[in-house]
Amino acid sequence: MTTTAIAYAAPAAKAPLEKTTITRRELGPHDVAIDIAYAGICHSDIHTVRDEWGQAHYPLTPGHEISGHVTAVGADVSRYAVGDRVGVGVMVDSCRECPACRDGEENYCEEGMVGTYDAELPNGEITQGGYSTAIVVDENYVLRIPEGLDLDAAAPLLCAGITVYSPLRHWKAGPGTRVAVIGLGGLGHMAVKFAAALGAEVTVLSQSLSKEADGRRMGAAHYYATNDPATFETCKRSFDLIINTVSANLDIDDYLELLDRNGTLVEVGLPENPIPVKAGSLINPRVSLSGSMIGGIAETQEMLDFAAAHGLASEIEVISGEQINEAYDRVVASDVRFRFVIDIDTLRTAH
Amino acid sequence: MTTTAIAYAAPAAKAPLEKTTITRRELGPHDVAIDIAYAGICHSDIHTVRDEWGQAHYPLTPGHEISGHVTAVGADVSRYAVGDRVGVGVMVDSCRECPACRDGEENYCEEGMVGTYDAELPNGEITQGGYSTAIVVDENYVLRIPEGLDLDAAAPLLCAGITVYSPLRHWKAGPGTRVAVIGLGGLGHMAVKFAAALGAEVTVLSQSLSKEADGRRMGAAHYYATNDPATFETCKRSFDLIINTVSANLDIDDYLELLDRNGTLVEVGLPENPIPVKAGSLINPRVSLSGSMIGGIAETQEMLDFAAAHGLASEIEVISGEQINEAYDRVVASDVRFRFVIDIDTLRTAH
Repeated sequence: MTTTAIAYAAPAAKAPLEKTTITRRELGPHDVAIDIAYAGICHSDIHTVRDEWGQAHYPLTPGHEISGHVTAVGADVSRYAVGDRVGVGVMVDSCRECPACRDGEENYCEEGMVGTYDAELPNGEITQGGYSTAIVVDENYVLRIPEGLDLDAAAPLLCAGITVYSPLRHWKAGPGTRVAVIGLGGLGHMAVKFAAALGAEVTVLSQSLSKEADGRRMGAAHYYATNDPATFETCKRSFDLIINTVSANLDIDDYLELLDRNGTLVEVGLPENPIPVKAGSLINPRVSLSGSMIGGIAETQEMLDFAAAHGLASEIEVISGEQINEAYDRVVASDVRFRFVIDIDTLRTAH
Repeated sequence: MTTTAIAYAAPAAKAPLEKTTITRRELGPHDVAIDIAYAGICHSDIHTVRDEWGQAHYPLTPGHEISGHVTAVGADVSRYAVGDRVGVGVMVDSCRECPACRDGEENYCEEGMVGTYDAELPNGEITQGGYSTAIVVDENYVLRIPEGLDLDAAAPLLCAGITVYSPLRHWKAGPGTRVAVIGLGGLGHMAVKFAAALGAEVTVLSQSLSKEADGRRMGAAHYYATNDPATFETCKRSFDLIINTVSANLDIDDYLELLDRNGTLVEVGLPENPIPVKAGSLINPRVSLSGSMIGGIAETQEMLDFAAAHGLASEIEVISGEQINEAYDRVVASDVRFRFVIDIDTLRTAH
């Protein structure tokens, strides 16, 4: 038996989101039914809703930073029980057979992971995301939210959190490493917290010093404004790892010069235009420009457990469903500290 | 007492090289005097002579792929004796104190290594390279050429060889790794030989199939033409490491798609224009665009010893000094199999 959920969806490209209803599939043997409590607003939601990446399917319910409680489980579900605190991130399935899936890196599934929203399923249906009161997800793609984490502040960890945690782990941020984070927004503020908790020496490279107090409170040892050319002299060859959380196109050669020998600059956003890179910026002193996309399910669980163990979570502004469209404009204007989270209970209230 | 050497030098930017004489410094306590037997022609020589990289100093004697014999040693030289077979590569000094120098990666010296030619010394003199009958070099920047290597075929190892050997070692080419080499020229043919000898599965990506027999003889298991669009389908996500030896600007996104998860594409040349890279090509499936510049002294010695142990050397066309200018045009036209080497004895003959 399918169920009906209340949702906020974009009826067409560039149209504002409207309250509507969507249908959730019948619970399969491996499925978990989740009552959604909170959904984070990710910049990807906005790009997709506004069709800036093309090929989006409408009506479209975004949302892939989901937290809530289990309300029912399929007959063969072994890992979750009714009442459990759970989360869902950017993917709800993958091929499960390719080398990436077998390695627990389902995010890099060779067949393409199945996105939590706007992804076509084999039966032709399009997945619908977390700006909704309920969702049904295979238990292998459901995360457990540890007791120490509040459901609202945990929601953004499912995308923003893992997106920065994974490269910090992959490139071995820790004691003795010097990590810079470009941008102190939804992703950047989590990158600072995680890198500091991992033991790295953290520097924030932000457009201005307006959020310096926040950055230092989150664990940054150094904070520089990139609108000051002196920053690029002061920080020259100073970092082992730079996480670029800014989607706007930067002059990447300037930032590659901040890497010490063998350093890596990791892109985690998707700038609209190709990034011009001088080969000379790479060959001396042997630095890398890399990318990273969210993380696997096991690593996402590790990240949630790490966050709980270190008392870390996203810093959020909780909004009602009616405020989503306004919040989108504020995200685009970088006017949020540091992540909007929708209180899904406000969708349940009749209007 | 300074000495006079016969040399081929460019009197001015873009001018052809002419036979002339240059002065070599008095032998210092740590210096080795070398009678040069052969000097390879590197594409960098041509870029510098023709002032394509700017700021060159004239008259300019190029040449940083040097082999020969020791003719005298300074009072405190401990590692070399008269008659030893030796080589000199791209650098003749470095600061010796920075972390890179202390790590034996003098090529990435933070003060900038001292190039074998066209580099300014503290006393204002400009270094002059190996298209000459003699050179004086500090023993710490001199390499030993093992008995198994001919001096002519060994000369190009000092730049072309180490330039590809170093990234193969740094990114751990070996049994179980899939290495592609873009371009089968002076650098590329050595990359194929070294990668195969290290145990990797080697693929050549060349513009056409015209050198396929050569590539397979050198150790390539696969050979594809990049002028055939099907190559980019056949090889999609097939490599762990790609060494790009081509200085012309390629569509790098096409090649990044040939990397499997966690793969790295290494630039070892210097394309004239910045390389445009789509962030999407990097983030999924987490690949890197990197660079590498020659290698340290210890690694260069390791490379020479490895080449001798495996019976590897550069494949060369030996020319006289009078043929240098013609050879330059042929290098630019990719008309050489696979490296020109100047027989320096031809400079000693009176004309």
